[in-house]
Amino acid sequence: MYAVIMAGGRGTRFWPRSRKKHPKQLLNIIGEKTILEQTVDRIRPLCPWERIYVVTEKDQAPQIRDLLPDLPEDQLLIEPLGKNTAPCIGLAARLLAERDPEAVMAVLPADHYIAREPDFHRVLTAAGEAARSGDYLITIGITPTFPETGYGYIEKGPNQALPGSYPVWAVRAFHEKPDRARAETMLAAGGFFWNSGMFIWTAAAILKKMAHVTPDLFREIQGLPGTLRHPEWGPALLKAYERMEDISIDYAVMEKADNVLMLEGDFGWNDVGSWEAVYQLAPKDAQGNCLQGPTVALDSTGCLVFSPRKTVALLGVQDLVVVETPDALLICPRERSQEVKKIVEVLEKKGEISLL
Amino acid sequence: MYAVIMAGGRGTRFWPRSRKKHPKQLLNIIGEKTILEQTVDRIRPLCPWERIYVVTEKDQAPQIRDLLPDLPEDQLLIEPLGKNTAPCIGLAARLLAERDPEAVMAVLPADHYIAREPDFHRVLTAAGEAARSGDYLITIGITPTFPETGYGYIEKGPNQALPGSYPVWAVRAFHEKPDRARAETMLAAGGFFWNSGMFIWTAAAILKKMAHVTPDLFREIQGLPGTLRHPEWGPALLKAYERMEDISIDYAVMEKADNVLMLEGDFGWNDVGSWEAVYQLAPKDAQGNCLQGPTVALDSTGCLVFSPRKTVALLGVQDLVVVETPDALLICPRERSQEVKKIVEVLEKKGEISLL
Repeated sequence: MYAVIMAGGRGTRFWPRSRKKHPKQLLNIIGEKTILEQTVDRIRPLCPWERIYVVTEKDQAPQIRDLLPDLPEDQLLIEPLGKNTAPCIGLAARLLAERDPEAVMAVLPADHYIAREPDFHRVLTAAGEAARSGDYLITIGITPTFPETGYGYIEKGPNQALPGSYPVWAVRAFHEKPDRARAETMLAAGGFFWNSGMFIWTAAAILKKMAHVTPDLFREIQGLPGTLRHPEWGPALLKAYERMEDISIDYAVMEKADNVLMLEGDFGWNDVGSWEAVYQLAPKDAQGNCLQGPTVALDSTGCLVFSPRKTVALLGVQDLVVVETPDALLICPRERSQEVKKIVEVLEKKGEISLL
Repeated sequence: MYAVIMAGGRGTRFWPRSRKKHPKQLLNIIGEKTILEQTVDRIRPLCPWERIYVVTEKDQAPQIRDLLPDLPEDQLLIEPLGKNTAPCIGLAARLLAERDPEAVMAVLPADHYIAREPDFHRVLTAAGEAARSGDYLITIGITPTFPETGYGYIEKGPNQALPGSYPVWAVRAFHEKPDRARAETMLAAGGFFWNSGMFIWTAAAILKKMAHVTPDLFREIQGLPGTLRHPEWGPALLKAYERMEDISIDYAVMEKADNVLMLEGDFGWNDVGSWEAVYQLAPKDAQGNCLQGPTVALDSTGCLVFSPRKTVALLGVQDLVVVETPDALLICPRERSQEVKKIVEVLEKKGEISLL
C-alpha cells in the first residue's frame, strides 16, 4: 500500500498560530510534533518511506522537506496552484500508476488526529485488501459520536461479500453537512457515518473512474509526464493546473460513482477543526484548563491558553481561548472558535499582510 | 499655598502595566501624560514650581526627576522606606515649617483624576483661606455619586463661620469602608462624603497636632535637620524612618483630632483605583469598547484593551479587560479588576521577581 498525504490546507481557523505559510498541518497544536509528522508517523507501520507521497503547495514545500528529511525527494509533489482534492488525488494516482500498475493508494488528509492507531491500522489494512480485490472506491466512514453539523455524512448500504478482515459495505448516498435537527435524526437512526476524507483504491481504479465521470480532469492528468524527472514536468504541471477545475474528489468523483464502498472507522478520529477541538484533545488540569506556557489562572475554568513565552494571568474567566504569538493575540470563547476565520477575513480586508 | 504631592504608591491593581519600579502614578493610563504629571499640571495654576514638593521612594525617584525636570532638586523628598502617609506628611511639614513658618500646605495624592479643574481650584483656594485663619485640619469630602464600598466616608457636622468663598463644615466622624447596605444608607441619608485623602492645613498646625496625638512620630520628625542640604540629612532620615510607625495620617491624626473641618468637593474626582475606573474615564467607541492599540473586535462589547504594539483580536467577548505588555498579559472581567492585586500576590509567592 502507498500513502498519499494531502498537505495543502491553509487552516485559517488556527489563527494567529496558523498563517498562509504556516498552516495547521505544520503546527504542533496536538502534542509535540506537527500534525503532518504525526500523520506520517501513524502510517509508517503500514508504508515505508519509499511508498509515502506528500502533496503540498510551493509555500509549504521547504518546511515539509525540513520536517520530513527521509521522504524521497520526488515523493514530495508540489502543486503549482491549489485546486482542491480532485486534481491533487489525480496527480498522485497518475504517478503511482506509472510506477506500479497495481498500486493500492490510501489517500489521507495531513491534518487529522487519530487516538487509537492500532484500530486505524486494522481498518486501513482491511480497506487495502478490499481495494486490491476489484475496481472499488473505498472510503472510511467514521462512527459518529454526536450530532456534528460540520461534517458530511455517508449513508451505509448493504454488506458486501468481499475478502478482508473487516465488513465492507455499499454506500447508499453521500449527504452534505446537515443542520442540527437532521444530524440528530441521522445519529438516532444509525447507519450514517462521518465522511473522513480518507480513501483507499488502486491508482488504476480511481483513474478509470475519473476517465468516466470527469473526463476533462482525467485528460489533463493523463497528459502529464509519468515522472517528476521528466524535463518538461514543471511547465506541464503548471499548464494542467491552470486548466483543471477547482473541485473536490467528493463532487468530482465519489458522488457520481457507482462502485463506492465503505468501511466503518471507530478509532478516535478528529479532524481538529478548531481551537475547541484542540481543547477537547488536550490534557487539562483540575479546573479544566489547558495552559500551555507560563500562566497564572485564578478562579478561571475551561480555558485553553497558548503562550509559550509570555506570562498570561487569567482572573475570573471561563471557557476562553487565548492564543499569544509574537505579533498577534486571539481571545474568544471556546464555543465560538469555529468563527476565528472571520478575523482572518477582516485582516485580509484591512490589508494586514504580515498577519495572514 | 504649597503643594505636597504624595507619590509613593505601588499600585498593584494596574498590573501588568504597574510594577514595583513603575507604579500607577508613573503610567499614562488616563490621557497621554502620566498621572503624576497631570497632578502637577493641575496644581500649577495655584502653586508655582518653587512651592511644589513631591514625596516618593528611592526606586521611583529617577523617573520622577525625568518627568518633572522643573521641580527644584531639594523639593523631591525621597523616603528611605515606605511608612504610609503619616511619616510622609510629617516629613514635608517639618521642612515647610522651617522654610516658611506660615506655610499653608495642600497634601495631594499623586494618582487621582479630577475632571473639572476650575471647580477643584476654587475648593482648594477656599480650603487654603480657611486653613490660614486658624489651627484647623481641613479635608476635602467628595460628594458621593453612588454607594461606593471602596472608600472611607466623612460625616459632615455643623457649618462653621469661617472666612472664604466656600462653606466650611465641622467633621462629626470618619467612617471606615462600609459594606454595600451601609453605603446605600449613607448615600440616601446625605451628609456623608468620600474621604479623598486630600488635606489642607498650615505646616505649623499639623505639627502641633502631631505633637499632641502622636508624640513618638512627632519626635522623630522634629529631630530631623531642617533642610536636605544638611550633611547628616540622609543618615538622620533613614534612622527616623526605621523607627517610625507605619501608619496613615487618618489613623495617626485625623481620627484623633478635634479641629478637623471639611469642604465639599464636587469636581469629578476619581481615585483611579482599578482598570474598571480607567474604562469608565476613557473614551469608548459605539460598541462600548476602549481599544488602545491595533485591535480587531468582532461581536465584542464593553472591553478595555491596552496593547500598543501587538494586534489583539477579540471575538465574541464582553466586558473584558485585556492588558498586554512585553512580558505579561492580563485577561479578566472588568467587574473583577479590583482583584488584579491577587495576581501580583501569586506572582510574589512564586518568586517571579521580574514580573513584579
